[in-house]
Amino acid sequence: MTEDSLRPLVAEALGTLLLVATVVGSGIMAQRLFHGTDSSDGLVLLANTAATAAGLLALILCFAPISGSHFNPAVSLAAFWEGRLSRREASAFGLAQMVGALGGTLFAHLMFSAPLLQISHHARPEWPMLLSEFTATFALVVVIRGTRNQALAPFAVAGIIAAGYWFTPSTSFANPAVTLARAFTDSFTGIRPMDVPGFMAAQFLGALAATVLFRWMQPPEALPAVVSD
Amino acid sequence: MTEDSLRPLVAEALGTLLLVATVVGSGIMAQRLFHGTDSSDGLVLLANTAATAAGLLALILCFAPISGSHFNPAVSLAAFWEGRLSRREASAFGLAQMVGALGGTLFAHLMFSAPLLQISHHARPEWPMLLSEFTATFALVVVIRGTRNQALAPFAVAGIIAAGYWFTPSTSFANPAVTLARAFTDSFTGIRPMDVPGFMAAQFLGALAATVLFRWMQPPEALPAVVSD
Amino acid sequence: MTEDSLRPLVAEALGTLLLVATVVGSGIMAQRLFHGTDSSDGLVLLANTAATAAGLLALILCFAPISGSHFNPAVSLAAFWEGRLSRREASAFGLAQMVGALGGTLFAHLMFSAPLLQISHHARPEWPMLLSEFTATFALVVVIRGTRNQALAPFAVAGIIAAGYWFTPSTSFANPAVTLARAFTDSFTGIRPMDVPGFMAAQFLGALAATVLFRWMQPPEALPAVVSD
Amino acid sequence: MTEDSLRPLVAEALGTLLLVATVVGSGIMAQRLFHGTDSSDGLVLLANTAATAAGLLALILCFAPISGSHFNPAVSLAAFWEGRLSRREASAFGLAQMVGALGGTLFAHLMFSAPLLQISHHARPEWPMLLSEFTATFALVVVIRGTRNQALAPFAVAGIIAAGYWFTPSTSFANPAVTLARAFTDSFTGIRPMDVPGFMAAQFLGALAATVLFRWMQPPEALPAVVSD
Repeated sequence: MTEDSLRPLVAEALGTLLLVATVVGSGIMAQRLFHGTDSSDGLVLLANTAATAAGLLALILCFAPISGSHFNPAVSLAAFWEGRLSRREASAFGLAQMVGALGGTLFAHLMFSAPLLQISHHARPEWPMLLSEFTATFALVVVIRGTRNQALAPFAVAGIIAAGYWFTPSTSFANPAVTLARAFTDSFTGIRPMDVPGFMAAQFLGALAATVLFRWMQPPEALPAVVSD
Repeated sequence: MTEDSLRPLVAEALGTLLLVATVVGSGIMAQRLFHGTDSSDGLVLLANTAATAAGLLALILCFAPISGSHFNPAVSLAAFWEGRLSRREASAFGLAQMVGALGGTLFAHLMFSAPLLQISHHARPEWPMLLSEFTATFALVVVIRGTRNQALAPFAVAGIIAAGYWFTPSTSFANPAVTLARAFTDSFTGIRPMDVPGFMAAQFLGALAATVLFRWMQPPEALPAVVSD
Repeated sequence: MTEDSLRPLVAEALGTLLLVATVVGSGIMAQRLFHGTDSSDGLVLLANTAATAAGLLALILCFAPISGSHFNPAVSLAAFWEGRLSRREASAFGLAQMVGALGGTLFAHLMFSAPLLQISHHARPEWPMLLSEFTATFALVVVIRGTRNQALAPFAVAGIIAAGYWFTPSTSFANPAVTLARAFTDSFTGIRPMDVPGFMAAQFLGALAATVLFRWMQPPEALPAVVSD
Repeated sequence: MTEDSLRPLVAEALGTLLLVATVVGSGIMAQRLFHGTDSSDGLVLLANTAATAAGLLALILCFAPISGSHFNPAVSLAAFWEGRLSRREASAFGLAQMVGALGGTLFAHLMFSAPLLQISHHARPEWPMLLSEFTATFALVVVIRGTRNQALAPFAVAGIIAAGYWFTPSTSFANPAVTLARAFTDSFTGIRPMDVPGFMAAQFLGALAATVLFRWMQPPEALPAVVSD
């Protein structure tokens, strides 16, 4: 592996790490600050939404020139389906994202002096959650694939994730790497390990549906060359 | 109907569906999270505003290259008045938006395990509501028509809707398709069916007033060619 | 007066009207929704800030190609000092803004079924308020004058006003026309008439200080030609 | 020292002053408005985050053409390490930022009629705080260094700071000049003087780590010429 092929992987790992640290860390922070108060549940989600959207915007803008700022195996898989990543690249991206995501959870725990290794007890079981994750990931990939103004795409992605935190009952994980990593935190943003496989399957199906739709909506051959910033 | 003429209609239907799912879904989510708390009414509207603005920004950026991201029969009608859509195109857009909007309400109910078919009991009757909807739609069409920087227009639209949620007593529906769809949810964002016709009439009048004003303010012949992204 | 010279005045009047309706209306709405709750004062200001910033962004983007989107006599006066408006134009702008602002207050009252004519009893007397308004207007004019990227200037202006709502004890009126108009609403955003002249004087002085500073910081002859969108 | 070399220093001092006045002032305002309420801690941080992000966006857009809008000795030092500022320039920037930051604290106290000279008693001692400040500054410099779209860089910086207010237990000071200045306010955003040196050391180390990483990630010789707006 050359340095040139390593750089995007480091970017994906680091970007996903900082993203998960933001998601998990802001959940812990908000839980502590709003602990025991009347409007706690809603206010924690509001703070979590603001921090996630703001951080996501910054991280996508930052790493887009290096790796395209996927931070998400479902997005990299969709890029593979469309021929924009080779199988080998997509696999390496996915692995880097998983490692980064798990690192992000540990790092958030470390910063907040919480036990490093935790297993979530946050049950997210009902089938509407699966529909919800399918929809959230479908909407995310639709937005990524549809937005042609590359400079403003980071705003579109942050926007659809912020909206998803509220319009889906599962709060829009929409990311298999982030889902896995959130199984290892027993805080606001966690998910019980037994609910993870269903979430992941729903997410990949959502990405597939969006890809199939856009193959028809915007035939790739009609797209302009990719401009990364 | 050719595939090329079908694509914008699918974009309008899907975009409006996701928009209404965001509006209705985030209202349900916020109502559940803030249920019974002291500041409930205001905090639900705050969360609803944030989710709607973020989702609207993403969806407009996404579908603009395909259909222009109207998602709103009043906007399509204004485009017809200005000769930017044919009568036939505007009608098809309006129908696609209606179907998408109704689908969005059903879909939000499905995700949140609520009864699929509901009728709103949320009364919004007083005449100030009509003035309010006239104003909200007038302001929306003014902003769409006035903003020349097409790349930033999605921010302007999301901005005026977010403001309208708070500066109009009706919380700025400003969209006949969305208004109809919101008659079928008995949750925070619903509207009693008997109040729908008045809202719609006020919205179309608002769009008309904005169109007449801008015919004088910015004569169409002086406008640069439309650039969609 | 020709039609061409009337258009910018209508734009200034309408833009200021919608801006003041947003400021005053969102204050009334938030006051009603959060009435009697524990965190009322802060939450009303938070909602007021979000609505104002979102509306201001939309309105500036909308009217910039027609009038430059001043909506503010202090900004128009600064433009006169710099030779970008004639004395006659600046006076007409100021008059249009005053008329629009007063209309905005009346219109907000009309929409919210409140008494049309009100006089504020909201005392904002202490001298720190004057320092606060001097600073808020100084910062506003500095931001307008300093930001060279005209496309993003609306974000900068909305940003400094949103910040000013919180970092100044007067909540950053920063606009003589808006200040006058807010004397005529006895709601959250009002100001007692006897405090208006001091506010206005402080605002004009703040604009003057910013203009003098930037005459040295960025000599006008070094600026590129104005691009309005 | 010529006028041309003085202008960037005045820009850095004034920008940092307004930034710190925003951070400290909005903290005081929010503390007063939410005083004694149930959700006080979290809501104060939420308001503080919104005001800081909005103000930072405006100030960066404003002063970027004049000085590059560092407002932060760690950022100026990183620019020196990369050869974009001379040692002399970086030192002068750092000094201007320190003076501006201290002025910002005093100015916030003056506006809010608080005692001008205060010493913070807000303890922020544990070692996780140091890790937290290392991370916050690392992420800030990574985002500055990685974002190639100069026009949108202000959004990336405001985004990572807003996220940092919530994903780090120290609320992301990420700035040695601001840290020093916050030792002199005994309000929400203060820091006990004895905790300042550790914060500063962690911040400079974070900036160093980001610089070393990006020397490999994006070799400077491969970067396009700097475009300031």
